[in-house]
Amino acid sequence: MSMRNAIVGQSGGPTSAINATLSGVIQGAAHNVGKLYGMSNGIAGLLEKRLVELNYLFDNEEELRKLELTPSVALGSCRYKLPQDMKSEIYPRIFEILEEYNIGYLFYIGGNDSMDTVVKLSAYASVNSIDVKIIGVPKTIDNDLMETDHCPGYGSAAKYVATTVYEIARDISAYNLPSVTVVELMGRDAGWLGCAGAMSKYYFGKGSDLIYLPEMDFSLDSFLGDVQNKLSAQKTVLVSVSEGIPLDGGNHVTDVFGHKYLAGVGRVLENAIREKIGCKVRSVELNLPQRCAGHIVSKTDIEESVCIGKGAVSHALSGQGGKMVAFKRCAGAYGVDIIAVDASLVANKIKHVPREYISYKDKFVTDKCIEYITPLIQGEVDIKYVMGMPNHFDLGERSCIK
Amino acid sequence: MSMRNAIVGQSGGPTSAINATLSGVIQGAAHNVGKLYGMSNGIAGLLEKRLVELNYLFDNEEELRKLELTPSVALGSCRYKLPQDMKSEIYPRIFEILEEYNIGYLFYIGGNDSMDTVVKLSAYASVNSIDVKIIGVPKTIDNDLMETDHCPGYGSAAKYVATTVYEIARDISAYNLPSVTVVELMGRDAGWLGCAGAMSKYYFGKGSDLIYLPEMDFSLDSFLGDVQNKLSAQKTVLVSVSEGIPLDGGNHVTDVFGHKYLAGVGRVLENAIREKIGCKVRSVELNLPQRCAGHIVSKTDIEESVCIGKGAVSHALSGQGGKMVAFKRCAGAYGVDIIAVDASLVANKIKHVPREYISYKDKFVTDKCIEYITPLIQGEVDIKYVMGMPNHFDLGERSCIK
Repeated sequence: MSMRNAIVGQSGGPTSAINATLSGVIQGAAHNVGKLYGMSNGIAGLLEKRLVELNYLFDNEEELRKLELTPSVALGSCRYKLPQDMKSEIYPRIFEILEEYNIGYLFYIGGNDSMDTVVKLSAYASVNSIDVKIIGVPKTIDNDLMETDHCPGYGSAAKYVATTVYEIARDISAYNLPSVTVVELMGRDAGWLGCAGAMSKYYFGKGSDLIYLPEMDFSLDSFLGDVQNKLSAQKTVLVSVSEGIPLDGGNHVTDVFGHKYLAGVGRVLENAIREKIGCKVRSVELNLPQRCAGHIVSKTDIEESVCIGKGAVSHALSGQGGKMVAFKRCAGAYGVDIIAVDASLVANKIKHVPREYISYKDKFVTDKCIEYITPLIQGEVDIKYVMGMPNHFDLGERSCIK
Repeated sequence: MSMRNAIVGQSGGPTSAINATLSGVIQGAAHNVGKLYGMSNGIAGLLEKRLVELNYLFDNEEELRKLELTPSVALGSCRYKLPQDMKSEIYPRIFEILEEYNIGYLFYIGGNDSMDTVVKLSAYASVNSIDVKIIGVPKTIDNDLMETDHCPGYGSAAKYVATTVYEIARDISAYNLPSVTVVELMGRDAGWLGCAGAMSKYYFGKGSDLIYLPEMDFSLDSFLGDVQNKLSAQKTVLVSVSEGIPLDGGNHVTDVFGHKYLAGVGRVLENAIREKIGCKVRSVELNLPQRCAGHIVSKTDIEESVCIGKGAVSHALSGQGGKMVAFKRCAGAYGVDIIAVDASLVANKIKHVPREYISYKDKFVTDKCIEYITPLIQGEVDIKYVMGMPNHFDLGERSCIK
């Protein structure tokens, strides 16, 4: 009996580690499946049969290592939500395509929206007795997926944030002048990256003096009071804020052309400080590099991301479906086991920073939070540089097979 | 006869290489001067006799290596302009302090404002027959100093920009949707960092598709036309703009509280694209990390920055004053000689990107510009990490001597 084929897709926002997981899936699948296809742009591309054959990478160690250290989404991504109505014609269309390519295993690397895709496809396959094992593989810099100790991609984003906040803290203390710097970090719903802004302050005494997360109440008056208090004790103050803090009054601004738009919360707080406190103030939005600064990834994160991709394949080959692979932190010295959890427990849910990780009074994080993050940002990788820039993997002109 | 003492100060904006130059001065001075003092916060600190003794670093290879790879300004910086009036009481005050500490050599690491300090102090010393050799040492990420092939600090900032623009280009091409991303780079007067945004596009075909520098005319209409043209040929468009492009209409915005403030040009162009073209659009201001991302410095830049610090000491010891040390690029294979030029030729002047480096029609840079930048961003250094973050040098509690 010939081996069945497999397909892998990437979905949702880019991270610096999602391609490491893709590499793990490729390594796990090598010689255990017939063909391994990649969906170009996730489910959206699958529906258009935009596929890439990935078998050429099976034993290509050099390209796999390069892929693992390349940020963004090598196969292309999508934001595509499958219809709630299981009678939608999309479902049979997807499974016809899967049958056409003799797919027995489908791996979907993504966040909580992508796990919704895993749940729906698995349900459809189950109800219709279709034998395709569908496994979700987590990724998100936001670290907000349930049922996993942490998410692949978070450790690298957190290392980037920890390092950059440290460097900025050093930069802004160059002058002997009172000043406030507001650093805006990603995190619309959950403050996990905001917590990473605490690392250098905790270990080296230089970094975020105040931290505001979506999980904390926020009022502009008490914020300004906190900043003023810090300023009376030290010359330069660094404040980290998650983009999703509940700002009273909103953050709309109007430009010279009369257009209203949403400014970052960092900018709004910068203006409030300038107006009410009057000292030198600057805001810095770390923006996209948080999810794509592949040149400063966490070795732990990259290695774990490869492992969880391999683990996804093991679980599928052993007959499981409708699951998401996840990390379970071992007791004692840091390490993780790879387990499989029901994807339905993850889909469309958000894991917030727990209360015991937050020091509400000091506007900071607790030791417990630091202990949680520390192992995730450990280790550096050996990036190859060409012409002074990182050498990235590219599928290049490899055309989609139809 | 006992050796005279020396003093070194850092001034102006931080860079990732200015401490490498400080290390070079320390190494050059070691055992060639009596004591080496550091000014805390430049001339402003000297006037308050806030000095640090640096002899403890003379043979401390480990600390010197750490110092070389620590961004920002280890001694602290200032923005202090000496008075035009040479009869001001500040001048005798400075030289009294220098005499009190038996200073024979003064090194001032900084940009074109700092060279103004070198010129004025040298003039005063000369007119009053005071034997203190004063030497300026260049630093600026802006690369806009005259009389030197390039400036210490620029190579590292350019490597950061080249790498980050490449990573962002990869990130934004994840989705199969038309989109424009505007990356705002530092450079109020000169577009040197803007040029660095071209590197990955030139070498790897992925990066800035359009580049706008302060040296180019700018009109919003033709900008939107350029973007629209690119969008008709490719899905995702990345535009790099220097913060100092001459924007018609200005870039004031008004927030919900009614405060007017200056938005970055990136944000203003983002809004204009949203309004007039209507596609997905985002702006990213690279902001402070351009001058403090010590974790991704150019090895060439760091090594040259150490060398020019040593060179400054050699020139002073050989009796020169009123000079700035500078790089002269060798013919043939890349290399630099360290020369001394009159600081007066540098003070308060700006070196713009020359016409032959700019492709006005394509909104890009020329091959000549790429050839100029390429060697400056080559090489990576071995950063030591502690707890997942770079291990930085700190003077710490070393108290100022009075």
